[in-house]
Amino acid sequence: MLKVIVIGSGNVGSHLVNMFDNSSQIDLVQWYSRSQITHKKIEVINNINFLKEADIYILCVSDNAIKGLSNKLNFKNKLVVHTSGSTPFQDICKKNKRGVFYPLQTFSKIKELDYTKIPICIESENKEDLELLKNLCEKINCKYYEINFEQRKTLHLAAVISNNFTNYLFGLSKEIILDKNLDFEILKPLINETVDKIHKLDPIESQTGPARRNDQNIIEMQVNMLENQEHRNLYKIISQMIKNKYDN
Amino acid sequence: MLKVIVIGSGNVGSHLVNMFDNSSQIDLVQWYSRSQITHKKIEVINNINFLKEADIYILCVSDNAIKGLSNKLNFKNKLVVHTSGSTPFQDICKKNKRGVFYPLQTFSKIKELDYTKIPICIESENKEDLELLKNLCEKINCKYYEINFEQRKTLHLAAVISNNFTNYLFGLSKEIILDKNLDFEILKPLINETVDKIHKLDPIESQTGPARRNDQNIIEMQVNMLENQEHRNLYKIISQMIKNKYDN
Repeated sequence: MLKVIVIGSGNVGSHLVNMFDNSSQIDLVQWYSRSQITHKKIEVINNINFLKEADIYILCVSDNAIKGLSNKLNFKNKLVVHTSGSTPFQDICKKNKRGVFYPLQTFSKIKELDYTKIPICIESENKEDLELLKNLCEKINCKYYEINFEQRKTLHLAAVISNNFTNYLFGLSKEIILDKNLDFEILKPLINETVDKIHKLDPIESQTGPARRNDQNIIEMQVNMLENQEHRNLYKIISQMIKNKYDN
Repeated sequence: MLKVIVIGSGNVGSHLVNMFDNSSQIDLVQWYSRSQITHKKIEVINNINFLKEADIYILCVSDNAIKGLSNKLNFKNKLVVHTSGSTPFQDICKKNKRGVFYPLQTFSKIKELDYTKIPICIESENKEDLELLKNLCEKINCKYYEINFEQRKTLHLAAVISNNFTNYLFGLSKEIILDKNLDFEILKPLINETVDKIHKLDPIESQTGPARRNDQNIIEMQVNMLENQEHRNLYKIISQMIKNKYDN
């Protein structure tokens, strides 16, 4: 059994605890959380000095807490990894062996996930620890990728654009629709198809819409429909970028 | 049997022909196309003067072709509808009865679709014709919504933002990833989850990411990673909009 301890109880920490708890091949020894939480099966502690022995310690804390927290760990020469997309493993205090276990997914506490569909980006200071991380991924049936810091930062950037920014646009569409007392449900089949398409067609080749076909009448009409100046500006900029890209 | 004629063989026209052809309750009388195409079952014509008798004529042509083409129809008092999101039915020549049959979906010729998941926005000049359009939607098992011109324009605008613009961002993410010799497949589970989430959580409430939590270090780092000035600008603008919205 691979012994794992999860440190942190934010969105990532909470989902990792579920993920490891679901695996019969992982011994989730403890869960450290600053806040008062309980778990039906796992020992939860809120004093960092009471951490037990484990094979892998996973820091699920905000980027700027990695350094300080890893300094406070009162053991050495163990494998300590963080889960950040944009932090080098060198931020972890060097008294321990260091690595990264970065799940490339968006986590919300109240939303269930199919854990086997999460790609894990792994990296380690020492070669033998990489085997330990691969082993951990296999035990939870996740695909893993050996990814260095530069690559990981690139993936994180692409994740922000394709997840955070698109979600913002979905929210903006919803606002526009609710504003006119229409039902957001009408738009959902289109949003589903938008994503379904990327599995079958290249998004760059399959671009459609007024900007793609340089339909200036529709572009102007839609800009004028937007009441918020920021929204107008965004609409114009993205339309212009699409027009430039496809060189109408 | 409801007799239908489809006019136009672009993305929308081609999919409507499939849709009607799949229904045993619709008699797809003819398909008009300017370009040389054939169909195993349907009579295809390329001379507009040879259109036969039907209950509904559906114009699947570009917005600015609706007026001219509807003028050329050599019959009157029949129901003629267009499929445009941003054109009033009044653009159709008034010698015929007029309406709209706007499928709120993105169509690519080579991508199959689940036709029963397409919401159809219908509108008609005369009340009795609305029944005919409802009947048509029912025969192809599509949900329909009675939508006036102002509402339809709003839906079209929201569709451009949540489909065309997000697809552009997916394409941009792909470019960024390929540029560093990484595999776009790594990002697909995240993109799937981005959309899966909108069915369970409000996109406005579930916004995450560096801009949402006002993580200026990551924002600056990611801006600097973008080599293209247009991309930098877009990243900054959307991040600022998210920051403003959530008032960090």
